[in-house]
Amino acid sequence: VRVLIVGAAGMIGRKLAGRLRASGTLRGEPVARLVRADAVEPVDVVADLSEPGIAGELLAGRPDVIFHLAAVVSGEAEADFDKGYRVNLDGMRSLLEAVRAADYAPRLVFTSSIAVFGPPLPDVIGDSHALTPATSYGTQKAVAELLLDDYSRRGFVDGVGIRLPTICVRPGKPNKAASGFFSSIIREPLSGKEAVLPVADTVRHWFASPRAAVEFLIHAAELDSAALGTRRCLTMPGLSATVAEQIEALRRVGGDEAVSLIRREPDETIARIVESWPRGFDTRRARELGFRAEESFDQIVQVYVEDELAA
Amino acid sequence: VRVLIVGAAGMIGRKLAGRLRASGTLRGEPVARLVRADAVEPVDVVADLSEPGIAGELLAGRPDVIFHLAAVVSGEAEADFDKGYRVNLDGMRSLLEAVRAADYAPRLVFTSSIAVFGPPLPDVIGDSHALTPATSYGTQKAVAELLLDDYSRRGFVDGVGIRLPTICVRPGKPNKAASGFFSSIIREPLSGKEAVLPVADTVRHWFASPRAAVEFLIHAAELDSAALGTRRCLTMPGLSATVAEQIEALRRVGGDEAVSLIRREPDETIARIVESWPRGFDTRRARELGFRAEESFDQIVQVYVEDELAA
Repeated sequence: VRVLIVGAAGMIGRKLAGRLRASGTLRGEPVARLVRADAVEPVDVVADLSEPGIAGELLAGRPDVIFHLAAVVSGEAEADFDKGYRVNLDGMRSLLEAVRAADYAPRLVFTSSIAVFGPPLPDVIGDSHALTPATSYGTQKAVAELLLDDYSRRGFVDGVGIRLPTICVRPGKPNKAASGFFSSIIREPLSGKEAVLPVADTVRHWFASPRAAVEFLIHAAELDSAALGTRRCLTMPGLSATVAEQIEALRRVGGDEAVSLIRREPDETIARIVESWPRGFDTRRARELGFRAEESFDQIVQVYVEDELAA
Repeated sequence: VRVLIVGAAGMIGRKLAGRLRASGTLRGEPVARLVRADAVEPVDVVADLSEPGIAGELLAGRPDVIFHLAAVVSGEAEADFDKGYRVNLDGMRSLLEAVRAADYAPRLVFTSSIAVFGPPLPDVIGDSHALTPATSYGTQKAVAELLLDDYSRRGFVDGVGIRLPTICVRPGKPNKAASGFFSSIIREPLSGKEAVLPVADTVRHWFASPRAAVEFLIHAAELDSAALGTRRCLTMPGLSATVAEQIEALRRVGGDEAVSLIRREPDETIARIVESWPRGFDTRRARELGFRAEESFDQIVQVYVEDELAA
């Protein structure tokens, strides 16, 4: 099986490539070729999908499975309107058009986001809830989902779109994403460093580990897409947890000492942004299709310890 | 008030222009300028929105209200994939980008369609139901809705999107649209001509008259958009009626003689397409905002008699 990863330099892209190299198989066949593409190093092909002709070049090797993870993230898409639309919307359309022109309907696994949902939201969001993005990033992901459905229905591509929960615990340094604290309040204390908590302990959010995210991608590449019907995009399973539950999970691993490194510094701006985010989902469709995530925040912390700290 | 109608040569566009000329006012002000644009005559400006630079030219007169009615219709968008995306999606985006560049946030009234909803559908579709288009046309309308929301949220445009019911009774000749029979079984018998009914009498659908559609557009131009919040697109009120109810309304106006001109000729293909269409909506949001439609099919027939046959 020939595999192309677009957006391979990001955290999930690197982990996915590592997973494919480690197992050496996908869809029960050996991974004969793995091409990692991204606009930035380290990858096999440095290529910006939103530039003319690039998508066609990437498809020259006729990959059987394409993972499309490339995106301008939420904050940047809000700050740079043109760049967000160019990369997140035009990039997707270029890829779909290149696939259509190549005329062999490969599996395309597209990573969408729970950012396609915005207020007003019920506490538990079902599989038929309207996409009501509250950001340009969410809009671009929602549009990409609609395009993936239509190109799949027409037989140009065999698409599967997966809406990822907030990935936690992200390894690496603290970043400026509004959601960054969900990871840093676990990651930093476990390394003996202070972390800032800008919201109340009662804030509830929707999580899965990086390891679960990689397994979602693998499963999306392998599942029988006929079972999806015409609705190719799915909210992935996750865990609905409060900040207080996160902190108790941290305490069970790192003790009171770790918890004492969390510094409460309320930030009204971040609190307001987080308030607009989904808190929980009924992901029946995805679970029936075999997607699995963690079932407690302890498991999410355990994955971080095993995959990042033990190494 | 300066008004631009894009897609002014179509049935609704012509009626809207006539209505504005007849009343001479919009938003409580005289209509100082009315520019009718379309890719085909008869209009003031022959212009294809999907060609580069055209949208900017159309905005040179800085219209206060823009009605965007231009579209490749359902059947054609399915038959000609590229043309549908070019006109319905790229055309909308060009218009939005031109409005953004003009930097004065005019009211943009966009006509969407109930084709944004596809199976599986409940009998009554609420305001928070997911957009699940089953056609390329519906996909393009759904994408345009998302873009209208995002450009409005960012303050580039003051958008209002209205999802029109199936417009009935359409004047003119029978056309090849799968929905054409809903109009022709009323229109043709009332002119002493035979009409073909390709589906069962039990088929239920969602209707409004051309007159109601024009009033939706006027109201969408005049309402206080702050009341819409960030969700700028609304399903318009309409009437859920079966073919049998249509026929009884015809009988009350044209008698048994008119009804006898309906020839039943079952068509499996049309029946299957119609089966996938919405049958009814809960349009609370639109009604609370003051949109009104007919409440019986008799009224819809009456509008046709008054507006088309009496003239």
